[in-house]
Amino acid sequence: MNLDKFFNAKNIAIVGVSRNPNKIGHTVFRNLVDIGFKGNIFPVNPYGGEILNKRIYTSLSKIEHKIDLALIAVPAKFVLGVVRDCGKSKIRDIVVYAAGFKEIGEEKLEKDLYKLLKKYKINCMGVNCLGSYDSYTKLDSIFNPRHKMGRPEQGSISFICQSGAVGASTLDMMKAKGYGIAKFISYGNATNVDETDFLEHLGKDDNTKVICMYIEGIKNGKKFLRVAKEVSKKKPIIVIKGGVTEAGHKAALSHTGSLAGVAEIYFGAFKQINLIKADNMEEMFDFARILEKTVEPKGDRVQVITNGGGYGIMATDSIIKNGLQMADMSKETKTELRKRFSDIITVGNPIDLVGNATAEEYGTAMEASLSDGNVDIMLVILLFQTPMLSPNVVDIISELNDLRKKPLIIVSSGGEFTEVLKKDLEDAGVVCYNFPNNAAKSIKQLVDYYLN
Amino acid sequence: MNLDKFFNAKNIAIVGVSRNPNKIGHTVFRNLVDIGFKGNIFPVNPYGGEILNKRIYTSLSKIEHKIDLALIAVPAKFVLGVVRDCGKSKIRDIVVYAAGFKEIGEEKLEKDLYKLLKKYKINCMGVNCLGSYDSYTKLDSIFNPRHKMGRPEQGSISFICQSGAVGASTLDMMKAKGYGIAKFISYGNATNVDETDFLEHLGKDDNTKVICMYIEGIKNGKKFLRVAKEVSKKKPIIVIKGGVTEAGHKAALSHTGSLAGVAEIYFGAFKQINLIKADNMEEMFDFARILEKTVEPKGDRVQVITNGGGYGIMATDSIIKNGLQMADMSKETKTELRKRFSDIITVGNPIDLVGNATAEEYGTAMEASLSDGNVDIMLVILLFQTPMLSPNVVDIISELNDLRKKPLIIVSSGGEFTEVLKKDLEDAGVVCYNFPNNAAKSIKQLVDYYLN
Repeated sequence: MNLDKFFNAKNIAIVGVSRNPNKIGHTVFRNLVDIGFKGNIFPVNPYGGEILNKRIYTSLSKIEHKIDLALIAVPAKFVLGVVRDCGKSKIRDIVVYAAGFKEIGEEKLEKDLYKLLKKYKINCMGVNCLGSYDSYTKLDSIFNPRHKMGRPEQGSISFICQSGAVGASTLDMMKAKGYGIAKFISYGNATNVDETDFLEHLGKDDNTKVICMYIEGIKNGKKFLRVAKEVSKKKPIIVIKGGVTEAGHKAALSHTGSLAGVAEIYFGAFKQINLIKADNMEEMFDFARILEKTVEPKGDRVQVITNGGGYGIMATDSIIKNGLQMADMSKETKTELRKRFSDIITVGNPIDLVGNATAEEYGTAMEASLSDGNVDIMLVILLFQTPMLSPNVVDIISELNDLRKKPLIIVSSGGEFTEVLKKDLEDAGVVCYNFPNNAAKSIKQLVDYYLN
Repeated sequence: MNLDKFFNAKNIAIVGVSRNPNKIGHTVFRNLVDIGFKGNIFPVNPYGGEILNKRIYTSLSKIEHKIDLALIAVPAKFVLGVVRDCGKSKIRDIVVYAAGFKEIGEEKLEKDLYKLLKKYKINCMGVNCLGSYDSYTKLDSIFNPRHKMGRPEQGSISFICQSGAVGASTLDMMKAKGYGIAKFISYGNATNVDETDFLEHLGKDDNTKVICMYIEGIKNGKKFLRVAKEVSKKKPIIVIKGGVTEAGHKAALSHTGSLAGVAEIYFGAFKQINLIKADNMEEMFDFARILEKTVEPKGDRVQVITNGGGYGIMATDSIIKNGLQMADMSKETKTELRKRFSDIITVGNPIDLVGNATAEEYGTAMEASLSDGNVDIMLVILLFQTPMLSPNVVDIISELNDLRKKPLIIVSSGGEFTEVLKKDLEDAGVVCYNFPNNAAKSIKQLVDYYLN
């Protein structure tokens, strides 16, 4: 199944285009124009006329160009007719936003649609979906208005999502947090293109380094496990499974009309093929960011560097609780560091640079850990509330991170001053967390993906 | 032990005041002036002169007023001399910031100080501490400059903290997130006033509704358990214990020189006296906010209302996983709601108002749950990315919350638009979380504190 056109179409028809800004047929058109989509857009509506200085075609058949992708913004009852028109116009890829199919018990309507799609060899994203977004081609087929829902920057995390609302709030959060995206896909009822098809597509996508999925049910378990197993050898797949309890499962049935399955069976199978399980959205992106940004670790021995004793202790607790090891630097490194540091600094693990730590002392401690053979991963805690720590530490860390010798993870917690400096670090490609436990749990996923 | 003067002194001496803005003796003075402290400040330094238009006294004995509290900003080696002067001037409460005592092996110096404090009947906050902050009296004895570390708004959460760095980053975070504080206390080495003394004080403090503690070790276990048991009957106490693993414990020894104890013993004892255990700072404030803001629940049956099916499923999973119950509204309520809502809305638990939910539909669903006898707690998911949901929903929720009939918890996840509306809700006293699992885990603490 070739799904390239959903992300890389040149000529896009929007069927059911509307001048009413509250209609999907308006926002879909508007979003593509506003983002500066490079291809051609052909609005279609039987009433004709103009929209934003563009001629509206009265039917698909009137368009003189070959259409690569049709975005279908009509109510459920009109979908079959439009799909038939698409088939006649040899359009092979469509997005259908409309709800009102099997998720509300309209099984027959969805089956009829399925048959029609098969007849005309059409791939359908949806029905009952939000659309998709490619940050590289700028093909944005999402119907939510841009002021209500941000689109994240370019990045190498891709996100597949059954639920439109989960997808929308996640994109919005990614944009606000500055997490980059490659492709976003909301697939809704998966009438004839399902999560596995999109997963397979992302497996081959050069812009995608990490795949995140929110799934309630899986259409074809065997196919999913076979494909996911192959893809996860090439890139990490992080999964949130909705409907893991009996009550949650019941709620899933009336949502996208899919069977949520038995959680234990899912998780057992996921583990065998090296999928990474996340319990919530925050965890999913905590895991995705470390897998996206850092280099492969050589082992699980973590060196902690801190300017706050309490945070050093919490980090140590978190590292041990997550089944990682505290690194033990060589005698030579320790002796050298003790020579260079004053007596109030504890040289060990954690290295506690204490409350009047300077950026230069951080540099010294990090360089030592970077070259010490007993250290695999560095966890550096930066508390910017202390008086002597200058923002120069951001440059020092970014430069060491650019060497890409060992995973270098930052923990920094505070207010606005902290957030500004953390943003600088993240923009420079350094992974930052708010608290030691988020960091340690994420390091565990990194280690498990590459080494276990 | 009367600790009132640390938070409510009229006449404060600052010993070791300095014109150098990089010195603690400067920032402590400056902070009190800048916050508009209502009492009198008496700067002391043997060199005399002036600072910010105020006369500097050359010694404590030269001050003509009775001093309630001395903030001692001199290095460790000068502390004993200053304490002796305080004793002679009948000063009974002091804050000592200096590090360089038992935490770096200077056991004798700390013992000598202890004896001197006993001789003169002086209560000492510290040594090796950050100071304290009372948002009501504006007595701010913290040495961190205000631009590097914010001070939170008035509120009813108080926070006791051994580690200065943990305290500083936490205050900074609280300020940025808009979480209110009553009193903040950093007690460092606890030379002669320890965590239990401060806990007892907060137990009697009318401004404090919830007590949060970060502790590495406890000075006197028996005393702590006795006091904590009494206090926790009146108000919830949430504890993070640093040094729970063997390695973390080892790190704690070189931090505040306290024995971290065996984690299992701690947690067993904590549970018996109804202390609430948090694993990290985020969790601590998730728990504190629900206990601060909501009314006492009558039971553990939670009704979920959502405009995103996926979030409804995740909420259901989280409620069940946390050992709470999904509410089952009465037949009458369900029939009534089915009459009022269109067919695409699922009336059950969750109530799924689907993607084009309006503020009015939220109002209808919330009012029904509020008056239904089978519902104890309401968990309302608001996804603002959807097209039809107007910001009016903020007023509707605030008004229902003001009735204070049942705990009403909001989950809302997204970007800037969402954050603005969430801030409005929080300002109106409504507790908000980013994800269903944070909310469910917090509801569990609320239920356990009041009902178990």
